[in-house]
Amino acid sequence: MKIAQISPLWERVPPFRYGGIELIVKLLTDELVRRGHEVTLFASGDSITAAKLKSVHQKALRLDPNIKEPGIYEHMLLADVYHQAHNFDVIHSHFGYSALSYSTFSKTPTVHTLHGSFTPENEKIFRRFAWQPFISISESQREPRLGMNYIHTVYNGIDTGVYSFQSEPVQPAYLAFVGRISPEKGPVEAIKIARATGLPLKMAGKIDVVDKTFYREQVEPLIDGEQIQYLGEVTHEEKVQLLSGATLTLFPITWREPFGLVMIESMATGTPVLAMGLGAVPEVIAHGKTGFICHTIEKMIEMVPQAMKLDRHTCREYVVSRFSVETMTDEYERAYEMVLRKKLT
Amino acid sequence: MKIAQISPLWERVPPFRYGGIELIVKLLTDELVRRGHEVTLFASGDSITAAKLKSVHQKALRLDPNIKEPGIYEHMLLADVYHQAHNFDVIHSHFGYSALSYSTFSKTPTVHTLHGSFTPENEKIFRRFAWQPFISISESQREPRLGMNYIHTVYNGIDTGVYSFQSEPVQPAYLAFVGRISPEKGPVEAIKIARATGLPLKMAGKIDVVDKTFYREQVEPLIDGEQIQYLGEVTHEEKVQLLSGATLTLFPITWREPFGLVMIESMATGTPVLAMGLGAVPEVIAHGKTGFICHTIEKMIEMVPQAMKLDRHTCREYVVSRFSVETMTDEYERAYEMVLRKKLT
Repeated sequence: MKIAQISPLWERVPPFRYGGIELIVKLLTDELVRRGHEVTLFASGDSITAAKLKSVHQKALRLDPNIKEPGIYEHMLLADVYHQAHNFDVIHSHFGYSALSYSTFSKTPTVHTLHGSFTPENEKIFRRFAWQPFISISESQREPRLGMNYIHTVYNGIDTGVYSFQSEPVQPAYLAFVGRISPEKGPVEAIKIARATGLPLKMAGKIDVVDKTFYREQVEPLIDGEQIQYLGEVTHEEKVQLLSGATLTLFPITWREPFGLVMIESMATGTPVLAMGLGAVPEVIAHGKTGFICHTIEKMIEMVPQAMKLDRHTCREYVVSRFSVETMTDEYERAYEMVLRKKLT
Repeated sequence: MKIAQISPLWERVPPFRYGGIELIVKLLTDELVRRGHEVTLFASGDSITAAKLKSVHQKALRLDPNIKEPGIYEHMLLADVYHQAHNFDVIHSHFGYSALSYSTFSKTPTVHTLHGSFTPENEKIFRRFAWQPFISISESQREPRLGMNYIHTVYNGIDTGVYSFQSEPVQPAYLAFVGRISPEKGPVEAIKIARATGLPLKMAGKIDVVDKTFYREQVEPLIDGEQIQYLGEVTHEEKVQLLSGATLTLFPITWREPFGLVMIESMATGTPVLAMGLGAVPEVIAHGKTGFICHTIEKMIEMVPQAMKLDRHTCREYVVSRFSVETMTDEYERAYEMVLRKKLT
């Protein structure tokens, strides 16, 4: 199959550090190439891929201080994609609403994976083009009231090979928290759970500019560097070490997480996950097997001892069988075939 | 002729106060309708026009505090325009580079009027689509090195009826400055000229957020409320009164002004213009007749007495014959015919 993949331009493929979308694009694209598809990746010029790379700027926009108007590069990239659309059987966009609008000018079908959340503003354009083929990354991500033409749900997958399994957690036991230090990820809630149980908590994740005040006022005062440690933004290797050594990973989110990559990263290393049951959480954790799904912080505190005892092999196997790159790619291939069949009939 | 006009969405057509592009769109659109064309105006939903209005949001984006992602509305508007492009003979865009990219997906020709200046970033997309038909608003606005397909230059026009002619300036005599209070418009230079000549200076114009520091540090200390007065942002009526009563309007710009609407507004009221010879200035002022074109501030100071003596009727007639809505519309009709002829051959 001749496939175009469109990645956001803000971050490189694969991302230098944080960048869930670009990581998924990397894994999917390389696996499609491995399976014999002819893949063209439209992405930032510094991307690394087994596919044919096409770009309009040599660097990830995030890394270039001269970038004042990212829209210019988006329009140029999308014009490039859709001017050569006839060369592809299917176009797969991870780009968001701009590609949605451009794709309506092409006969080649585009499937749109939505990686983020809806906002009162972006809902307008999704409604406007609701008839386009969409893929959700979880069932809970869908908003039925928008009436969008979802053709499939494809869960994110990871390369389980780079998340080394650890059969026993490090001693003394500690809890892990990995994610942006922002209210919706629940770092304050994680600290509350750690304090109530007396277990050490190791936290890692970046602090976005918009979250600096939140960090300074609500998180930093609770970090004592002993029981509650904040390691800053960590590398992939450090993250794997942090997760695999933990006795339990906390995921006390306060919003409707569309997927939650860190849950599968943790389980892949063998570490079960104790999570708040919002958004995609019930689709990602096997309750009572690879973690527990709770609805209050009090319940999460109560469940810590039981969650720590869950079988680490089960966690690992669960991810390998359900959230691998291979499974994700199988499902995307099915989605591509669906839109192609529809086009031919 | 069936014509679509695409206006920026940030400001209403016509603008509430400041908004040169939206004013030109208003005048051109209504005059085309008056001449019997079937015109559809794509603009903000609160626009007022004799044409058929199509919009994607009920308000000018600038006036709606809920607007966080203007790009959403731009994409929806441009998709609307180009999905119905087959209903038009010609599309005329005042929208900038986004419409440039979209227009390449349509068989209906789009002529693009560039109202602004080039930047190192937007040059990239103009080069990319250099073969599209462009209209410059002055000869000096063009950048030959970009190799763009300019089909015509059309000077801005104004409704001379709303700029009442005043045969004698107000006594005691004063100088006028109308424009954004920003370094490129030369407010500090205007004050320097006024001080050197001893004449009072009345200044009006908005202060953009980016220019607040410039105003506070470099302009405000020079305003004494007596000889040097700053009136803030004024209404159209106040602007006409300010210009028509002046003995001379100063236009001491420090950048390549692409057109300079205030020069023709001033001359329409009878007031000559003393200007720095940058950008479009030599194309807009008749040197020695409706103003003087200088190349240093010292020369401008020296020319004030002579400039004050220029004939006010000549100034008025010059604008009526060269920069009226009728002339502008004649020239745009010619441009539309050019692209249509090219399409048919």
